[in-house]
Amino acid sequence: MKCCILGGGGFIGTNIAQRLVADGVHVRIFGRPSPYADAVSGAVHYQGEFADIPALQAAVDGCDLVYHLIGSTNPVTAENDKLFDLRDNVENSLHLLDMGARGAFGRLVFLSSGGTIYGIQQNMPIAEDAPQWPISSYGVTKLALERYLNLYGHLQGLDYRIARLSNPFGEFQVTRKGQGVIATILRCALTGDTFRIVGDGSVTRDYIYIGDAVDALVMLGHYRGGERVFNVASGRGHSIMDLVGLVESLSNRPITRQHLPSRAIDVPVNILDITRIQRELGWTPQTPMAEALNRAYRWMGEIIARPAFMPV
Amino acid sequence: MKCCILGGGGFIGTNIAQRLVADGVHVRIFGRPSPYADAVSGAVHYQGEFADIPALQAAVDGCDLVYHLIGSTNPVTAENDKLFDLRDNVENSLHLLDMGARGAFGRLVFLSSGGTIYGIQQNMPIAEDAPQWPISSYGVTKLALERYLNLYGHLQGLDYRIARLSNPFGEFQVTRKGQGVIATILRCALTGDTFRIVGDGSVTRDYIYIGDAVDALVMLGHYRGGERVFNVASGRGHSIMDLVGLVESLSNRPITRQHLPSRAIDVPVNILDITRIQRELGWTPQTPMAEALNRAYRWMGEIIARPAFMPV
Repeated sequence: MKCCILGGGGFIGTNIAQRLVADGVHVRIFGRPSPYADAVSGAVHYQGEFADIPALQAAVDGCDLVYHLIGSTNPVTAENDKLFDLRDNVENSLHLLDMGARGAFGRLVFLSSGGTIYGIQQNMPIAEDAPQWPISSYGVTKLALERYLNLYGHLQGLDYRIARLSNPFGEFQVTRKGQGVIATILRCALTGDTFRIVGDGSVTRDYIYIGDAVDALVMLGHYRGGERVFNVASGRGHSIMDLVGLVESLSNRPITRQHLPSRAIDVPVNILDITRIQRELGWTPQTPMAEALNRAYRWMGEIIARPAFMPV
Repeated sequence: MKCCILGGGGFIGTNIAQRLVADGVHVRIFGRPSPYADAVSGAVHYQGEFADIPALQAAVDGCDLVYHLIGSTNPVTAENDKLFDLRDNVENSLHLLDMGARGAFGRLVFLSSGGTIYGIQQNMPIAEDAPQWPISSYGVTKLALERYLNLYGHLQGLDYRIARLSNPFGEFQVTRKGQGVIATILRCALTGDTFRIVGDGSVTRDYIYIGDAVDALVMLGHYRGGERVFNVASGRGHSIMDLVGLVESLSNRPITRQHLPSRAIDVPVNILDITRIQRELGWTPQTPMAEALNRAYRWMGEIIARPAFMPV
């Protein structure tokens, strides 16, 4: 089996690649140079920009499975330049879908955003069929791309699955681009840096250990049932203050906090319903929060101890 | 009161403009040169392309109300060039939303597509909260724009309302761009041209007389309640074969038919639930189908009788 991971050099992609390589899959990683290339030496690296159509074509050509993890924005940068977000993520993805429609590759698994696509909801946990009115540009472009996938599926037979991932954390997550609240808390616990909390710390999210998320994403590559869209999440909510407390217990060190103003793009609560993926894939998250945090803490500790460590 | 109608030179815009001018509103029409400019001589015409930001700004500046009717594609052309559809309709609209967020104008009423945005549904009629998985690129870009409106409303206080219009027909509708099945049937009845039916004629749609649609769109400009999204429709379905029969009865002439292959982008049935707009606006469609068809038929007859008539 051949698999290509688009944007595979980052946190999530590196974890998927490690697993697939260990499973004997022929893995290609497409994207920008990866800081973790050594960790997946068994994969073939295709360097290229998403907008470089021939480079993209060469990477996906002949693959049984493509993971689309490329995203050039995060909820903050997308908001600051909505046009760039739309062009760089949606327009470029249409080229990829065209390749899929022409038979360049088999299945496409798209990483959507369970944390932003549903916007503000009254009822928790949130199932896949809940109304979707995102309150961030990041969520709007993810939503648009989901709909294009469905369109290509309907009109041209594209074989796709959508993973609405909640907030993954664990090995290979560093605190860059303003994302990764757990990685940031872990770093603060290890370095003594002040943890800057956006808002009062009550914002509640669904966090999932990356090892469990990878299990689900690998299973989605093989799933033969008829569902297309899946929440991939823990089904449990933790406030930021909860997380700070858990990391303090784990590290046995107090974390200095500073509160920043809250942001309008943050929904107050987001906990996802995982009934569908449990039923259809027989998957369920396996790693208890304390154990997952401990693994992430140990990994972060090793990284920080390296002389070359540079948080970006 | 000042009002600007973007894309106001076409079928729907001309009808809105006529009504507003008659109501004493100061009306600006922005867009390409209109074949119906004489019919709305009381309005001020601002000629310009949607992508021309300074021209757009000049047109909307200081208006209490803006109708966004501009669409450079239809379901067929959008499908043939999805990138153009996305750029020309969504990207350009983001500039308009930025202007609204900066306070250039008051309320924005956006014309969405009740016929394409819901995709394939099991239950009729379709209410506003039904899942939205369009099976046409045209529907996907309308959906994306709706979500951007909601985003600007949430983050920047943009005052917007969304009209998910079904299939309007009546005065000023000609058979261009492959849209307007009723106008096409009326023309065939008048000229003896063969009516080319896409598929077997069973495709069922919700048709609304333009005069009734204009009532709703004008009321949406003033509505003070909290709902943002409204189906604007008759709530009734007619198959294409139904329509052919109705026009044959009306004109007392047989219409020659030719069947073309059906299209994958056409949903089989689309009838909209109008409970929300009836409740919130006190609006309900007033014109019986036979009466509406008769008015459209008389208008089309006069147009065709003119020496300069050129169906485009």
